[in-house]
Amino acid sequence: MSEYAPSIEKLIQCFERLPSIGHKTAARLAFHVLDWSEDQTDDFVNSIINAKKNLKCCGKCYNISDTDPCSICSNVNRDQSIICVVENVRDIVSMERTHEFRGLYHVLHGSISPMNGIGPEDIKIKELLNRLNTEKIKEVIIATNPRVEGEATAMYLSKLIKPLGIKVSRIAHGIPVGGDLEYTDEITLTKALEGRTQM
Amino acid sequence: MSEYAPSIEKLIQCFERLPSIGHKTAARLAFHVLDWSEDQTDDFVNSIINAKKNLKCCGKCYNISDTDPCSICSNVNRDQSIICVVENVRDIVSMERTHEFRGLYHVLHGSISPMNGIGPEDIKIKELLNRLNTEKIKEVIIATNPRVEGEATAMYLSKLIKPLGIKVSRIAHGIPVGGDLEYTDEITLTKALEGRTQM
Repeated sequence: MSEYAPSIEKLIQCFERLPSIGHKTAARLAFHVLDWSEDQTDDFVNSIINAKKNLKCCGKCYNISDTDPCSICSNVNRDQSIICVVENVRDIVSMERTHEFRGLYHVLHGSISPMNGIGPEDIKIKELLNRLNTEKIKEVIIATNPRVEGEATAMYLSKLIKPLGIKVSRIAHGIPVGGDLEYTDEITLTKALEGRTQM
Repeated sequence: MSEYAPSIEKLIQCFERLPSIGHKTAARLAFHVLDWSEDQTDDFVNSIINAKKNLKCCGKCYNISDTDPCSICSNVNRDQSIICVVENVRDIVSMERTHEFRGLYHVLHGSISPMNGIGPEDIKIKELLNRLNTEKIKEVIIATNPRVEGEATAMYLSKLIKPLGIKVSRIAHGIPVGGDLEYTDEITLTKALEGRTQM
């Protein structure tokens, strides 16, 4: 038996499809939406419709952007000889926040994960190799996540790219700034030791 | 500087307007929406549009429903002589889940809260009194939340309704089922003592 009015129930169900939104949160969000003015609702609905309509995958780096090529690929002030390989679009934003990297990106849209049936052909590896063959790339920085899948992907890529005579590097693992040795797991600490730099 | 593509940034901003959704969660939700199929997106957008279009306030009890009067008010099998007064629409669903109450409801759409500038005239108290004057009501059960505002509202209502010769009751405060005396605050325990029933 549906407890709320059918239109509310349907709205709650839709909100429940969002990640990490359970039934109670979905109900709270749904009732919040019901309190919105017509303008607010239109704005919300249109932002979804427009985003789905306007956004496209950059044909070069597979970033999601309003333009193709994306604003990063079409920025001539960026170093066109370095590619930073990331798992997803959000990772680009994280990297950009550092203001340290001025090269290009390549979004894999996932990582190799045999457990989930995702093989090398399911992510944008072929497209990366195409770029390495056609663009003048000096270095590929692999910035996949430091998890099993990300590491496996990094290893796989490194074995493919090294024979092309292109420098391959991996972002450092270690203790986060502000972190605490006492609360750092052994694997991270081992990586931090291995990756130590001379002072 | 906007870090994501403008359409994504706009979508994230819209999700941030929802309660308890911060920037990071909004970004996660926005990217999830971008992964949806066209059907899923249409379903989500339409559920919002339809809910806003179809839902109306029941002219009798001020429940939000697809119909006016709402399904509860128009159910002739329910006891038309008891009204349970609640603060908001979601409280009706909570009460209905008990399957114990078979009377009607009245939604105040808030509680008296001078701190927030909400006085008796800002919530549906006048409308409740109108009902008490026109319908044949034997008992009013006040089920506002056991917080300062809910208690104040309950006291205010009780003083208004008692002179009409209608029985006024308040839902019991006490230790939740499965609760623990050791972890129960003094005020709840005092209420539980005051409200003790003979065995």
